[in-house]
Amino acid sequence: MPAVEDRLRALGILLPAAVPPVANYVPSVISGPWLVVSGQLALGDDGKLDPAHIGKVGASLSIEAGRAAARRCAINILAQAKAALGDLDRIRRCLRLGGFVNAAPGFSQVAAAMNGASDLMVEVLGEKGRHARTTVGVAELPLDCAVEVEALFEIADKGL
Amino acid sequence: MPAVEDRLRALGILLPAAVPPVANYVPSVISGPWLVVSGQLALGDDGKLDPAHIGKVGASLSIEAGRAAARRCAINILAQAKAALGDLDRIRRCLRLGGFVNAAPGFSQVAAAMNGASDLMVEVLGEKGRHARTTVGVAELPLDCAVEVEALFEIADKGL
Amino acid sequence: MPAVEDRLRALGILLPAAVPPVANYVPSVISGPWLVVSGQLALGDDGKLDPAHIGKVGASLSIEAGRAAARRCAINILAQAKAALGDLDRIRRCLRLGGFVNAAPGFSQVAAAMNGASDLMVEVLGEKGRHARTTVGVAELPLDCAVEVEALFEIADKGL
Repeated sequence: MPAVEDRLRALGILLPAAVPPVANYVPSVISGPWLVVSGQLALGDDGKLDPAHIGKVGASLSIEAGRAAARRCAINILAQAKAALGDLDRIRRCLRLGGFVNAAPGFSQVAAAMNGASDLMVEVLGEKGRHARTTVGVAELPLDCAVEVEALFEIADKGL
Repeated sequence: MPAVEDRLRALGILLPAAVPPVANYVPSVISGPWLVVSGQLALGDDGKLDPAHIGKVGASLSIEAGRAAARRCAINILAQAKAALGDLDRIRRCLRLGGFVNAAPGFSQVAAAMNGASDLMVEVLGEKGRHARTTVGVAELPLDCAVEVEALFEIADKGL
Repeated sequence: MPAVEDRLRALGILLPAAVPPVANYVPSVISGPWLVVSGQLALGDDGKLDPAHIGKVGASLSIEAGRAAARRCAINILAQAKAALGDLDRIRRCLRLGGFVNAAPGFSQVAAAMNGASDLMVEVLGEKGRHARTTVGVAELPLDCAVEVEALFEIADKGL
């Protein structure tokens, strides 16, 4: 399999600068062979939310827009993983994604939106990207972002 | 203590076939001595949601109905654990359940509904079933299911 | 760095008695070098919710009130950690906080409320308190509490 960075290039994905958090927490922590990544919003390369990623999926935003926001969250997760690990090839596996969809009342197709994150992870990491997942529809998200995704990775070279 | 399968039989619980996910994720992953199980809905033996498990707890569904849905989620978690481990006696402990209740506006008795999952885990696993837990009421769940539950287990024979 | 208990004293924080759960789950579990703490509400020293911590942030409660509730959840997390570990100096690091804010419709400043928990963790634990974090706004919480926070810690003396 090609190196993860090669895949990103082939997919035309440029990882943004990892966004530092604005409060007393950190974007990720490493504990033994695990990398825990904080919930990521769909922030763009400029660190701001594109209006296309703001609002409730199923109301002002379509499922497709939700999927695009979830994909962007996953890209930001990989940016944080790269900042933490230096090299994305150190990822042995994406173990889990937790997906929170800013859902309009009565909109239950939250899994379809979250697929944008899951698909991106498998596109980039191949079999190593296949993860356990929990998806729910929440009432509100920071900055009224359409989707927030958190992640847990296993690191290859930290002895398990 | 009798084997877990014996307990299931004594309780009259037949584990369903583990439901495969319909997207780019997997029902569970093993990492070292941990088994992470994806969020499970209250799907029935036929892989479909019984109407009794659809809707908002505190509105169209009673607390009792919520509890029954949570119990079904826990049964599906055990089905996924069995599919992953082969033998449920390999479980050393259920470490954590995360419960998401599809809550009607103003319905805050979400813990009472989630007890259906916690009680099942202890009925089946005994002391090994006593877990840490987080329960929240969410706006929407996939398929408008009443409850979704995710789980983390410690595996007995993977050296901790 | 002074011992954690000294810091608590200097901050004027008296840890409450750890609140036992009222159902088939436990306040925390230890698995290898990890301590998983169940979602904690903002219960007071008497095990009850102060009215100031009840209701929706952004409606009946201000952001400041939400922040105070989140801070109280974090204090209760430390009380559970002390009950589990005996000595808070056994904490090597707070790895992750999961924050669930009982958000009024349209209130997206949930991260500002959750900062009350993150700030407390860093005040008390110093650099060891800097954690990964996920914050979402949920529809309902147990007892209509304003905030619920769960935690994951790494234990110093359990060999990683």
